[in-house]
Amino acid sequence: MNGGGKRMHELAARLFPLCRSITGNGVRATLGILKESLPLTVHEVPSGTRVFDWTVPPEWNINSAWIRDSKGNTIVDFSNNNLHVVGYSPPVDARLSLAELQEHLHSIPEQPDAIPYVTSYYKERWGFCMAHRARKALADGAYQVRIDSTLAPGSLTYGELILPGKSEKEVFLSTYICHPSMANNELSGPVVTAALANWLMSAPHRYTYRIIFIPETIGSLAYLSKNLDVMKKNIIAGFNITCVGDDCAYSYLPSRSGTTRADYAALRVLRARHPDFIRYSFLERGGDERQYCSPGVDLPVVSIMRSKYGTYPEYHTSLDDLRLVTPSGLQGGLDVLKECIEWIENNPTYHAVHCGEPQLAKHGLYPTIVDSGGALSVDIPLLQNLQNVLAYADGAHDIPTIAEICNVPEADIQSAVASLMEAGLLVDS
Amino acid sequence: MNGGGKRMHELAARLFPLCRSITGNGVRATLGILKESLPLTVHEVPSGTRVFDWTVPPEWNINSAWIRDSKGNTIVDFSNNNLHVVGYSPPVDARLSLAELQEHLHSIPEQPDAIPYVTSYYKERWGFCMAHRARKALADGAYQVRIDSTLAPGSLTYGELILPGKSEKEVFLSTYICHPSMANNELSGPVVTAALANWLMSAPHRYTYRIIFIPETIGSLAYLSKNLDVMKKNIIAGFNITCVGDDCAYSYLPSRSGTTRADYAALRVLRARHPDFIRYSFLERGGDERQYCSPGVDLPVVSIMRSKYGTYPEYHTSLDDLRLVTPSGLQGGLDVLKECIEWIENNPTYHAVHCGEPQLAKHGLYPTIVDSGGALSVDIPLLQNLQNVLAYADGAHDIPTIAEICNVPEADIQSAVASLMEAGLLVDS
Amino acid sequence: MNGGGKRMHELAARLFPLCRSITGNGVRATLGILKESLPLTVHEVPSGTRVFDWTVPPEWNINSAWIRDSKGNTIVDFSNNNLHVVGYSPPVDARLSLAELQEHLHSIPEQPDAIPYVTSYYKERWGFCMAHRARKALADGAYQVRIDSTLAPGSLTYGELILPGKSEKEVFLSTYICHPSMANNELSGPVVTAALANWLMSAPHRYTYRIIFIPETIGSLAYLSKNLDVMKKNIIAGFNITCVGDDCAYSYLPSRSGTTRADYAALRVLRARHPDFIRYSFLERGGDERQYCSPGVDLPVVSIMRSKYGTYPEYHTSLDDLRLVTPSGLQGGLDVLKECIEWIENNPTYHAVHCGEPQLAKHGLYPTIVDSGGALSVDIPLLQNLQNVLAYADGAHDIPTIAEICNVPEADIQSAVASLMEAGLLVDS
Repeated sequence: MNGGGKRMHELAARLFPLCRSITGNGVRATLGILKESLPLTVHEVPSGTRVFDWTVPPEWNINSAWIRDSKGNTIVDFSNNNLHVVGYSPPVDARLSLAELQEHLHSIPEQPDAIPYVTSYYKERWGFCMAHRARKALADGAYQVRIDSTLAPGSLTYGELILPGKSEKEVFLSTYICHPSMANNELSGPVVTAALANWLMSAPHRYTYRIIFIPETIGSLAYLSKNLDVMKKNIIAGFNITCVGDDCAYSYLPSRSGTTRADYAALRVLRARHPDFIRYSFLERGGDERQYCSPGVDLPVVSIMRSKYGTYPEYHTSLDDLRLVTPSGLQGGLDVLKECIEWIENNPTYHAVHCGEPQLAKHGLYPTIVDSGGALSVDIPLLQNLQNVLAYADGAHDIPTIAEICNVPEADIQSAVASLMEAGLLVDS
Repeated sequence: MNGGGKRMHELAARLFPLCRSITGNGVRATLGILKESLPLTVHEVPSGTRVFDWTVPPEWNINSAWIRDSKGNTIVDFSNNNLHVVGYSPPVDARLSLAELQEHLHSIPEQPDAIPYVTSYYKERWGFCMAHRARKALADGAYQVRIDSTLAPGSLTYGELILPGKSEKEVFLSTYICHPSMANNELSGPVVTAALANWLMSAPHRYTYRIIFIPETIGSLAYLSKNLDVMKKNIIAGFNITCVGDDCAYSYLPSRSGTTRADYAALRVLRARHPDFIRYSFLERGGDERQYCSPGVDLPVVSIMRSKYGTYPEYHTSLDDLRLVTPSGLQGGLDVLKECIEWIENNPTYHAVHCGEPQLAKHGLYPTIVDSGGALSVDIPLLQNLQNVLAYADGAHDIPTIAEICNVPEADIQSAVASLMEAGLLVDS
Repeated sequence: MNGGGKRMHELAARLFPLCRSITGNGVRATLGILKESLPLTVHEVPSGTRVFDWTVPPEWNINSAWIRDSKGNTIVDFSNNNLHVVGYSPPVDARLSLAELQEHLHSIPEQPDAIPYVTSYYKERWGFCMAHRARKALADGAYQVRIDSTLAPGSLTYGELILPGKSEKEVFLSTYICHPSMANNELSGPVVTAALANWLMSAPHRYTYRIIFIPETIGSLAYLSKNLDVMKKNIIAGFNITCVGDDCAYSYLPSRSGTTRADYAALRVLRARHPDFIRYSFLERGGDERQYCSPGVDLPVVSIMRSKYGTYPEYHTSLDDLRLVTPSGLQGGLDVLKECIEWIENNPTYHAVHCGEPQLAKHGLYPTIVDSGGALSVDIPLLQNLQNVLAYADGAHDIPTIAEICNVPEADIQSAVASLMEAGLLVDS
């Protein structure tokens, strides 16, 4: 593991305690920390804004929350773990019997030490989450509960970063900033995406990068509602970046068609680097690819993950923490996404500039003498690669495809493409 | 066999004696009887009207016809069986020798008791048809022949019934009313089509039904020449209804492409209900699918039959009678066509109303709480069906196709579609 | 072998001594001889004309050239073989040591008796080519070299013959006239093409024939630059005619897509006539198909050859002579190309004239009586062929394809097509 993984893990550790949700100051604080290294633009979408079939909800903020028993002992304290409160709980200050309290408690009998992650964004409902072992130990008697929260008109907050490239065509990266103190799902996504953005900022790139840090579902829909036309026009590949931080599997969830440049890149890289990767079906989707790949949106977006959401026992509990997510896990997630981006950057499609073959000799790419005696003989394979690249430079073939047709190493085609572009005989797109 | 089959058979029995042809009062009388239960519009296309490469011929009517021997005995009498006269025979009143008469006689040596069905619509030619056994018994001598017919400018008559549905999209039903006293080919077509029309009139339906009762070939061409544009625009499936009345096989003749919604419906229903059905090739076509599937017309029309024209020994003879066609045979033909129509009615394609996923919780289709503890846990398969229907609601997928993609029972997808439509989140087409 | 092969060989023998290059009087003299039997139009494209990425070079002409040793003996004489001088050598008159001379000599150590074919069109460079055996025998000492040539503004010359057919659609034939004294590559191309042109002129044909005699590469590009639009609009098949004169293999090099009418014709004919033909890949291309099949040009052009350029030891040497190329070899090349052309002529696609089926009886193609008794019974297979041709006359099916669908001999479909066209019911395209 290198320093990058460690730095990502440290960033995750800084972000971990913040109480994120789909709105609120936890999201703003998260974006504030990301802005220390990224020139994010922060957008606010007011509560009440209509977004397709949805409406941006009131903004939720919370200061403190606790349960005390009749002796005044604090049984559950939000300041210990922000998973203790059901997301979007309205304020409450009440005295309850244990039976009444039980109606508002959530725990997982099968995982007695885990605090579950529970939200109720669109229906007002307060509640506490706790380890089942602790819940079972609750004695009969009266309990005092207090949630000091607000649910009021405000806005939904997201961060956006556009990194212009040589081309107007875009690669799209989208990740979630709505999960409170959990690590794989989801601090791995924002910290790996931030690292990708930093890496992309460090060098020029062919494509423009559209990178967004959003709350899941309502955030992606709000973003689509504002940007769909330009996204449909420009995006050539996209990645929904989630669950990229543990040390277990690598996995891939395709786009709806399964045949986009993002799918090809993901499959090429994973087959080469992690041939034991898990290939999910589009039917197993569960994140914002539900929006990005919906009919009429149809963006070329895939997910490359480590352990996929819903497949590991710590998922959506307090056990999804910074021990589950590791520097090496994050580094692995970053590396595979970097390679996918490099693959896409390195594999544009091409157009020949001239009708017919160009005069290669004039450009120093063909011998000026044709001599069957062979004294000044041509490097035939090199010449053939040049001619084959030109023959397939019809806007529909990238280098791996041409290499496959010609049955030569990709590096040879890459080199031929480079020579032709240098000579002004080929343009990419 | 239920009452429907019996009623169809009774209607066939009423229609049987009428002398139908491609024009004339027999057609009008037939449509008159059908109008007792169906609000048919009767159209008249004048003789001489150009119809693509064809011209509507003069109208033919016939009062009586007979052959008498030298002793005055009536050997052949049209009033006994209207197959006795070659269709479109001009009037004749002549005295002939047996040898001269033989030139105008038609019979089938291999079927000595059958009167053949012979027509000569487009070349004036008179003739008589008789059982070969009776023909062989003719004694030498003089014969008197009389055909009291008219061939004169008039019109071609057909019946049309448009049953508007919720959609402008149409299902097309076409059947023949040009055959004289024969039962499978063809009174089965009109009586089954009439029963289908009555059934369709008894309840609302999704699609508009375009139902026509026409003379074969010249009738379908005349109809196409007047209605082709709207038919090409609206028809999503069609059935050429012929030979649907005996108790033998079920059979299917595809459209030219073999991949229309009518083909899918026919195959699904026949495979389920009559897995031993005979699957003919488009090359074995012989009816108006020759017009409906011709280049430039290209309507999605198939035939579902019992014993196909040309394949049973009674075909085009007096043996194709009301003993060959039975109540249960007609009922079987009706049932399979009803199921095809139901299949099409029940299997539209869908469009999602909103961009991205709708807010299912708002519509009561998603839990308002997301709780990894599972106390209020979601019906995951149900939710997945809803999401998958939405993901494939792109106007190109019907329920069976979505069910196949998702590998779940069709009923589950049907139920998900129903929920989404009820919630206003999905429209069909 | 018949007289045609002998006449082609004699024409090749007349053309053999001329010093052809990509420009110059050798090309004009060649076209002059071809004009004796063909009404060629000769076009001149001035030096300096821009042609896509290329520029038409100065015109090269040569009168004489020799090398003499110190005793005045002529060691190498252009008048013995025009391969002795590097094509496009500028004038030179110099006295050199053997070492200095060696810098300008070309030979093939592995083929000590062959004079190699060397050119330097686009970089000024003089040189001599000689048999390696003779080169090794050169004694030390002074040598006099003289090349009496001119390199000056002039023009590139090519011949064009348009043979109008019934259709505006074109078949394209292209061959090279830029090679000096060599026989398979390339006098076989022009003499076979001339024979094809004479044959085409001897009888009417469906398609228009566009036949060009051009210098390789710069000639095809110059021609494309003037005619691309009409070529793309009209050409339905094309053949690049080269290396069609020896007695060895038959071979085929496909178009880029491999699915054009030219490809189908070539494959059908070669499989039938020469099932042991060599099937090259488009990747093994080396002639003007590089221009004709380039992106944006995309003409349906293939090569049918005997021994392909680059695959036989005599290639591009003085051994590629009129013993390698034979009357029977040329005849074989001509025959296979003729058959391809006949195949294309005989296999147009069709459109039905009328919507729906025409009234076949009116056109004498259907009995006027329909009689199940069979006395005047129909030729059912014949009738079915007529109806099937009409059913597939949608502009996308040729006769072999319809025959394949109907599983009947092509001759039967051919005959049905002929009947329908005679009746004015079908048009080809």
